Amino acid sequence: MDQEIINNIKVLGIDMIHEAGSGHPGIVLGAAPIIYTLYAKHLNINLNDPNWINRDRFVMSAGHGSALLYATLYMAGFPLTLDDLKQFRKLGSKTPGHPEFGVTTGVDVTTGPLGQGFATAVGLALGDKILEQKYFLNRKGNFGRTTKELVFDHQVYCLCGDGDLMEGIASEAASFAGTYRLDNLIVLYDSNHISLDGDTNFSFHENVLDRFKAYGWHTDLVTNGNSVKDIDKAIEKAKGENRPSIIEIRTTIGEGSLLAGTNTVHGKPLSPEDILQLKQKLGWSTKPFVVSERAVNNFRRQIQEHSKAKYEEWAKEYREYVNDHLGGNTSELDYLFKRNQPIDILKMASSVIQGDKEELRVTNQKVMDEISLLLSYFIGGSADLRSSTKAYLSKRQDITRENYTGSNIWFGVREHAMGAILNGLALCNFKVFGSTFLAFSDYMKPAIRMSSLMKLPVTYIFTHDSISIGSDGPTHQPIEQLAMLRSTPNLNVYRPCDENELIGSWNDILSLKETPSVLVVTKNAVPVLPTSKRAEVATGAYIVYPEKKELHGIIIATGTEVHTAINVAIQLYQEEHLDLRVVSMPCMERFLEQSEEYQQSILPTGIRTIVIEAGSSFGWHRFVYNDKYLITVDHFGASGSKDEVLKYCNFDFQTIKERVKKILK
Amino acid sequence: MDQEIINNIKVLGIDMIHEAGSGHPGIVLGAAPIIYTLYAKHLNINLNDPNWINRDRFVMSAGHGSALLYATLYMAGFPLTLDDLKQFRKLGSKTPGHPEFGVTTGVDVTTGPLGQGFATAVGLALGDKILEQKYFLNRKGNFGRTTKELVFDHQVYCLCGDGDLMEGIASEAASFAGTYRLDNLIVLYDSNHISLDGDTNFSFHENVLDRFKAYGWHTDLVTNGNSVKDIDKAIEKAKGENRPSIIEIRTTIGEGSLLAGTNTVHGKPLSPEDILQLKQKLGWSTKPFVVSERAVNNFRRQIQEHSKAKYEEWAKEYREYVNDHLGGNTSELDYLFKRNQPIDILKMASSVIQGDKEELRVTNQKVMDEISLLLSYFIGGSADLRSSTKAYLSKRQDITRENYTGSNIWFGVREHAMGAILNGLALCNFKVFGSTFLAFSDYMKPAIRMSSLMKLPVTYIFTHDSISIGSDGPTHQPIEQLAMLRSTPNLNVYRPCDENELIGSWNDILSLKETPSVLVVTKNAVPVLPTSKRAEVATGAYIVYPEKKELHGIIIATGTEVHTAINVAIQLYQEEHLDLRVVSMPCMERFLEQSEEYQQSILPTGIRTIVIEAGSSFGWHRFVYNDKYLITVDHFGASGSKDEVLKYCNFDFQTIKERVKKILK
Repeated sequence: MDQEIINNIKVLGIDMIHEAGSGHPGIVLGAAPIIYTLYAKHLNINLNDPNWINRDRFVMSAGHGSALLYATLYMAGFPLTLDDLKQFRKLGSKTPGHPEFGVTTGVDVTTGPLGQGFATAVGLALGDKILEQKYFLNRKGNFGRTTKELVFDHQVYCLCGDGDLMEGIASEAASFAGTYRLDNLIVLYDSNHISLDGDTNFSFHENVLDRFKAYGWHTDLVTNGNSVKDIDKAIEKAKGENRPSIIEIRTTIGEGSLLAGTNTVHGKPLSPEDILQLKQKLGWSTKPFVVSERAVNNFRRQIQEHSKAKYEEWAKEYREYVNDHLGGNTSELDYLFKRNQPIDILKMASSVIQGDKEELRVTNQKVMDEISLLLSYFIGGSADLRSSTKAYLSKRQDITRENYTGSNIWFGVREHAMGAILNGLALCNFKVFGSTFLAFSDYMKPAIRMSSLMKLPVTYIFTHDSISIGSDGPTHQPIEQLAMLRSTPNLNVYRPCDENELIGSWNDILSLKETPSVLVVTKNAVPVLPTSKRAEVATGAYIVYPEKKELHGIIIATGTEVHTAINVAIQLYQEEHLDLRVVSMPCMERFLEQSEEYQQSILPTGIRTIVIEAGSSFGWHRFVYNDKYLITVDHFGASGSKDEVLKYCNFDFQTIKERVKKILK
Repeated sequence: MDQEIINNIKVLGIDMIHEAGSGHPGIVLGAAPIIYTLYAKHLNINLNDPNWINRDRFVMSAGHGSALLYATLYMAGFPLTLDDLKQFRKLGSKTPGHPEFGVTTGVDVTTGPLGQGFATAVGLALGDKILEQKYFLNRKGNFGRTTKELVFDHQVYCLCGDGDLMEGIASEAASFAGTYRLDNLIVLYDSNHISLDGDTNFSFHENVLDRFKAYGWHTDLVTNGNSVKDIDKAIEKAKGENRPSIIEIRTTIGEGSLLAGTNTVHGKPLSPEDILQLKQKLGWSTKPFVVSERAVNNFRRQIQEHSKAKYEEWAKEYREYVNDHLGGNTSELDYLFKRNQPIDILKMASSVIQGDKEELRVTNQKVMDEISLLLSYFIGGSADLRSSTKAYLSKRQDITRENYTGSNIWFGVREHAMGAILNGLALCNFKVFGSTFLAFSDYMKPAIRMSSLMKLPVTYIFTHDSISIGSDGPTHQPIEQLAMLRSTPNLNVYRPCDENELIGSWNDILSLKETPSVLVVTKNAVPVLPTSKRAEVATGAYIVYPEKKELHGIIIATGTEVHTAINVAIQLYQEEHLDLRVVSMPCMERFLEQSEEYQQSILPTGIRTIVIEAGSSFGWHRFVYNDKYLITVDHFGASGSKDEVLKYCNFDFQTIKERVKKILK
């Protein structure tokens, strides 16, 4: 019966690709026995409660295997119809070209760009470990995986191919998972020695299992990728390990196709003749989309057999936990079921003494501490720069491999994996943050894009936000990074000028359920402006320094440049009777969402407007007449003292002031 | 004497950091014995010919160790004065905060962002292997490293720390180096169990040497990082290996400082008291910048002792090679000494039959073949997508670990390392290219930035350039990538519309000596436009379809959208008597370099101008009055057929045409 179900998955996948006219048959035919074994024998799910928070997660990191996944989900009884399968890769279908979280029930993570799924799975596994210890009742001090007293104890499975394992992000995440000893993670490595361009002998000549052993993983090898028994046994063994596991399963890409074992079968639909001979070989009807009732029933029964008791036990434990420990009030568990609830921090007490300056990164640390007192599920970390970014929760403990009950994660110098791990944690409904220098946001761009695509409210905190960092030089001085981030769809970029706007930014960030945020924080010391406004951050831009009487011109600025702009305005009024308005724009995206009327009230058409920002002019032209009105930095910085570098970039106060004067006089 | 030189390097480094008021003392004190041993006993260089093309290369991947490097270069006799050391981290000095290629003689690679140096070193090593076999005289068919008949046989050394080895790009590059068996690469791993935030026990708990063994590297461990003898022996052994080597050298960060062994000493100047006690401990004068004449002389003599014969032998071999094989004419070797010579390909014969359409990626493959016939040093590859990007040289062989004489590199699914390896090859003066999908340019951004910073004329070829790729869905559809790339300083982004502009783009790219390029190529089939111009690409934008009489409006377009724009213009003239000009803008950066006069001749002020591009509007506002004139795509795409997706994004022909009409009527 195993084989009949596997064959059914195969032919459905192949028919889908044929119908769509595009797709990836190689993995469908090669890896069907793997995914079948996983779902039939191990993956604990409940089709009546598909979003069960303690369900096992499955991540198809090799996202081009979407047809395999959808065919399996259909066979397993997820809410997909044969018609859905026929709509594979069509607009608006539940079966898009690569798996998309939120589109298809049963798809836990959006995948496609290689390595992302693997690293996100690591985040899901860490999320489970944190929840496991957080809600462990600790009756016997037993932290083992076999105890019956845990509310959270799900496994995270990930199917990946050679391509995933060549990606640096997967290496980073694997090293992290080993360091954090994530014993609930099991990676199934579809090893077929073929990648898109051909034999991996040319491009990937390493011993993958030895590498993972070095990371501290349990490794296993299944030489016969068609043996359900062997795969089953290896998974069972891995579940008992006290560290993450990878099982290399040797398969033949496109098995059964005339092109089996070649890279040609990776990403091109099989020819009609090939499909015909394949189905005959499998003893299957040659008609398209034929489903064996018997196979479906058996598959679903198997899934129920291993999942049902587990689900019922969990439901019972959960009820007991709620009754015994929470007195029946589940409000503190709400976040597990529903994306984060907004909290209002606008009235938070100031930590900066009036008139004083404080490094904004330091203020941010204090604000984050306050937030951590309000949100138990506020967690995050830094890519080995927390000493510099100050983005950590000083009132909370570190999360380590010995103790997951803290809130501060040591990501190591792994910016890219940090992004994907944050995505995984956000999928567990944690409110998460990660930090590094703004220049190094480059390293994380693909993961940030996944946050935006999956609509996960992750917060990226980037300090050292301009050339003003000085002597570390151009490699560390961001120029084009704000443009890169602002141009990304569904991503809000905040660059507050002081504590008020910082708190306002966080307040807005915490209110967002489907939008990731970037919080750009200077390490420079800044005072709290008397006229800055917390609540106005949500509008994206507001008048932080009004004109006196006549409006001669407007300066738009962000971050520390708001202080510069106000000083320029004050001096030019005194010296030149130029009556200027300064608009602080902590979030361009938010401002562009406002009504035309509001936007006009802040930036009326017909008034000469200047932008001051210590970064690329790219993207700022929309607010000005032409280039001349942009006081920005469009080349790389230099190593030197802060003042030297500002001068070098024509961005010192005097030069800026003269330029504003020249433009407006 | 070894110790005296080491101590001198240490105190100079510490004094530099003290004088600068910032810097990284930890690595200076911890790794001085390593760099000393390397320079004194192994690194083959010639101070009278510091750019000797067969010199050994040294890459300080841990770029924060710049003070250590500069102190060593000074002691070794490179053109640095004590005053230069005193100018550490000051504007315009030869001693910037992180090592910068082109600023300091003796600095082979710009480093700082972790992992980049490591991966670039891999590129340098590959470059040497290619040159080694290319110019191997093959008198005895002996390809071994010990033969005396090779013109190229330099070693590449790289000093890195824990941070570098946590980065994904280093993992990718290490796997690549193992696959390509780069036996001329020796990595010296400064292993001190401390990273910026603290003990690596929290963030980096793996067996690094076992991991490298799995990649196919030779590994070695020196437990006493102060033992010049042990380090020397390990390097000597590594030189004899037939695979890349990594030597883990156990050191104490900040050794001798009161803060030795802690993360505090990583990135903060030592206190005056600490400096005092350190110098006393080392038996050194407590005055700043004290140099021991004896130490300097001894160090320089040691370097000469092992380098001189090697240099002279090489010079002799080189002369023989030139005389015996080139008849005294060195012109074909010019590229080794001087950044690439421009070649004119504007008159290249067309490969597209008139009136016919051809996928532009296919045309590009043919153009690249032609270039490969003109430039023997034109090499590159793809991150396992050459079957899709078509960016390879079909008239040349593959480069494999058995045979480096080809031109096509198998980078594997390692986009990020590909970028850095290309940088390394460009530093060897190869004219290099690398390809993947435009959406995955995200993965390479940090390496692309290094190309721009180092002014290396690398060419990045990105296909699958818009939502029009259709059914692979939003993960594979670029939106914001053109903005990300265009906003990067010193990077030209070309998006040609047909074969003519493609050839024009390549012609321009090949003429650039200090600017990397991005070549964005559609996989769609396009005809050759009767009015497209090859030579005009160098101007960035030109009139590809002129107005008839009256100029009612201008459409700017790039890539395939130029065809759309022309069809819109033709139809709106026929149907609505709208007289439109179409401007093709294959390279925005080039256009913005042109004279005001030229720019006005193409895009006169006062004429309503519309932009059509299948990507983010970000950065396009500079050419239009406001948002309404931008026909772009500012949200993620979707999975569906090409036509479905275009319609979904309001980017189908009819919708575009209606919008243009509505704007201009």
